[in-house]
Amino acid sequence: MRDLQPLLEPRSVAIIGASSSPEKSGYTLLKNIVDGGFKGPIYPINPKAKEILGHRAYPAITAVPEPVDLAFIVLPREVVAETIRACQAKGVGAAVIITAGFREAGGDGPRYQDALAAVIRAGQTRVIGPNTIGMVTMASRLIGTFVPYRHWKDGGVSLMSQTGLMAGAFMNELMRAEVQRLGIGKSLPVGNKIDVDEVDFLAYCRRDPATRVVGLHLEGIPDLPAFLRELRATSREKPVVVLKTARTAAGQRTAAAHTGADPVDMGALDEGLKACGVPRAGDLEDFMSTLKAFAWQPLPRGPRVGVVTWTGAQGVLAMDEVVEAGLEPATFTAETGRRLAALLPAWQAADVNPVDVWAAAERAARAVTEGTLDSVLADPNTDGALALILAIEGVDFSEVRQVFQGLKERHPTKPLYLVIYGSGVKTRWLHDLEGLDIPVFFNSRLAVSALAAATRYAQARGAR
Amino acid sequence: MRDLQPLLEPRSVAIIGASSSPEKSGYTLLKNIVDGGFKGPIYPINPKAKEILGHRAYPAITAVPEPVDLAFIVLPREVVAETIRACQAKGVGAAVIITAGFREAGGDGPRYQDALAAVIRAGQTRVIGPNTIGMVTMASRLIGTFVPYRHWKDGGVSLMSQTGLMAGAFMNELMRAEVQRLGIGKSLPVGNKIDVDEVDFLAYCRRDPATRVVGLHLEGIPDLPAFLRELRATSREKPVVVLKTARTAAGQRTAAAHTGADPVDMGALDEGLKACGVPRAGDLEDFMSTLKAFAWQPLPRGPRVGVVTWTGAQGVLAMDEVVEAGLEPATFTAETGRRLAALLPAWQAADVNPVDVWAAAERAARAVTEGTLDSVLADPNTDGALALILAIEGVDFSEVRQVFQGLKERHPTKPLYLVIYGSGVKTRWLHDLEGLDIPVFFNSRLAVSALAAATRYAQARGAR
Repeated sequence: MRDLQPLLEPRSVAIIGASSSPEKSGYTLLKNIVDGGFKGPIYPINPKAKEILGHRAYPAITAVPEPVDLAFIVLPREVVAETIRACQAKGVGAAVIITAGFREAGGDGPRYQDALAAVIRAGQTRVIGPNTIGMVTMASRLIGTFVPYRHWKDGGVSLMSQTGLMAGAFMNELMRAEVQRLGIGKSLPVGNKIDVDEVDFLAYCRRDPATRVVGLHLEGIPDLPAFLRELRATSREKPVVVLKTARTAAGQRTAAAHTGADPVDMGALDEGLKACGVPRAGDLEDFMSTLKAFAWQPLPRGPRVGVVTWTGAQGVLAMDEVVEAGLEPATFTAETGRRLAALLPAWQAADVNPVDVWAAAERAARAVTEGTLDSVLADPNTDGALALILAIEGVDFSEVRQVFQGLKERHPTKPLYLVIYGSGVKTRWLHDLEGLDIPVFFNSRLAVSALAAATRYAQARGAR
Repeated sequence: MRDLQPLLEPRSVAIIGASSSPEKSGYTLLKNIVDGGFKGPIYPINPKAKEILGHRAYPAITAVPEPVDLAFIVLPREVVAETIRACQAKGVGAAVIITAGFREAGGDGPRYQDALAAVIRAGQTRVIGPNTIGMVTMASRLIGTFVPYRHWKDGGVSLMSQTGLMAGAFMNELMRAEVQRLGIGKSLPVGNKIDVDEVDFLAYCRRDPATRVVGLHLEGIPDLPAFLRELRATSREKPVVVLKTARTAAGQRTAAAHTGADPVDMGALDEGLKACGVPRAGDLEDFMSTLKAFAWQPLPRGPRVGVVTWTGAQGVLAMDEVVEAGLEPATFTAETGRRLAALLPAWQAADVNPVDVWAAAERAARAVTEGTLDSVLADPNTDGALALILAIEGVDFSEVRQVFQGLKERHPTKPLYLVIYGSGVKTRWLHDLEGLDIPVFFNSRLAVSALAAATRYAQARGAR
């Protein structure tokens, strides 16, 4: 077991290769760490500078008088191995090697990577990279990447990824969203992954009380049996979601040039995931949606879904998706039928799933929204509820937050997922719902896929 | 062959059941038609009013002195059949029955529907509905629905749908988007579909020069052989995209209560679609994405895709998706390799697909964007190009429109699809690209799915 505490909860950081020239990456990285509000001391390492961005600089890592938990390395590949040796000599707990040009680059790259790996193996300093864009860990308020995140939201999701996908522009876009922003406590892009890997990260997350759900974006999995062993242990404690790329020969060739990853036996991987109920996301949106569902909502106790819809056509679409995802349309109890009958027009059959609220909501939007969802969530025959909402004039009401907060408080153990269409009114609804941790999805397919993943995970965990 | 010209290119409209009370639907509908700027005369029909919203009212449709192409009916279900008889007597070309409570409603509904159907069959007036929210046809600038569309964009997409899905809140949300708005010339929600159906609509669209692509959202298909015959004829002329809901037993039960649709043999449908290369969309987003791709871009001549990526991880993901969708990663020519080598750093292999431009774009964003995409589009070994772009500071440039306009002009017969991530800079890119008809997708899965659909369609059409 390798301890990732210096990496993911560092009390001090050094930037080896820090620069005072704003066009250099050694400057950008340092600036983001400073602007991000890192909690502990920051040591720029630069043989020529006295001070950079208000922090005293040192000529070498070994010259820092205090202990250093974590060092970033932004130097040419030729000197990276000897810099790791210096970190080991100093007793640095962990190092993040930003530098690229190793196994992923061809030419002399693999030779450099082999030499670096030998140095790492001989010492105690844990290493991320090489060939990574940095990392974020909110446990220490450390924004340790080139990407300036002014809006990073802390939360219970811990992510490990290959290079930039989960810490670059895509994440910046997510983090700048005004609403429904997923809180991410740790984002660790591991690049060529020659030391710290998914096995270490899972083991850390299993014991980390701040982690509610783990997301893994993987190109290669160097030790599949070890990974599946640790996955089995971690997923007994908390959910894990996997996005596996490099699934095809073309993807594997591309990954070889990206992070130097070797192909993975997809059949063996899927079998292992299935045994733990760990979902493998179909695409990037599905990955983020499923993480949101796991982070925010209780697990369903079974596959029976109650649907409330503001539009008949969406109800048809969603029922297909529910069945095709392996879930079951719930059959409401007679009591639910009676409660719904009191809300719906007399001509409408009231015990039908999905509940079509359009005609009723036109007359009493708030009462119908609250009443139908209360009935469906209270029904012992439902394990979760999905609402397909049109947030538009005519069926709008002002107490949106109050209604959904009440639903959440009255039904704390049953998941509620929303799909909302609309325009101006929708924007207000999303703001009103902010912070309640009730997930809104772009379309019903994503909502149903996430609910199905949560259901399978709960079933697999319960069956152990 | 039933002529849909009075329906889809009306020169005059009547609103039977027009009201001067703003809370009534007979008012909202009339107001939207007036505000929408309908090109011809508008006749409110109301036995008590002299004038509504500045238009002279008539006590009955038969009292209108001029010819009426299209009548909307907003009356209780008990009087709908006799109103259709009056329309027939007047020689009205087509009628849209908004009124609900027919086969979808149970109780007396089916009896009313049967009586109404008998009246319709006996006359010449073509009928949409009952149980529809209205329609839009930009050929006559007619916004004939309850939904106030202030931003409807005309264009080459013709849509037929069941009730609200494609003309309600979802469409309103699409139409209010500032950029990448898909132009939709006709949106026809047919509701219970007792007269005009998908066969009539396809036949009309086949001959309509304004239609570039047809989108069909279908719950039921009453006459599958007739539909597949007409689909075969239409898809020889222009592309068609199908979103079929009510695929499962649960979806079919829901559809029965929504539009009264009967189940469809999905195996026979899929076989018929495949023979014409007509894609069946996986979900609502896929449906809209595929329509955008068909409306805006030339068809690929084969399955070979060249990918340019701003991020290695996205490149891996996209190559998997390309292969899994049945497309092929292109193998670049030696000439392309030479052109790319001049743009990329010396350490990077230049003839590799995907082309990873990150390192090069940091130094010369515009030249690298233009040069790599030019090379990939010019390569005789590619049938289409996909670019995965990070629109962020550092690799941004100001001549975005100029560069992509040039690419489009130099490679008019090869499709170019984009996936863009970013935040503030992305917004500007989208505005800069507006009007060039280069589609931007939310994620690579949607882009690849649409490209694969276009490829299969082109192949099927070529093979006939």
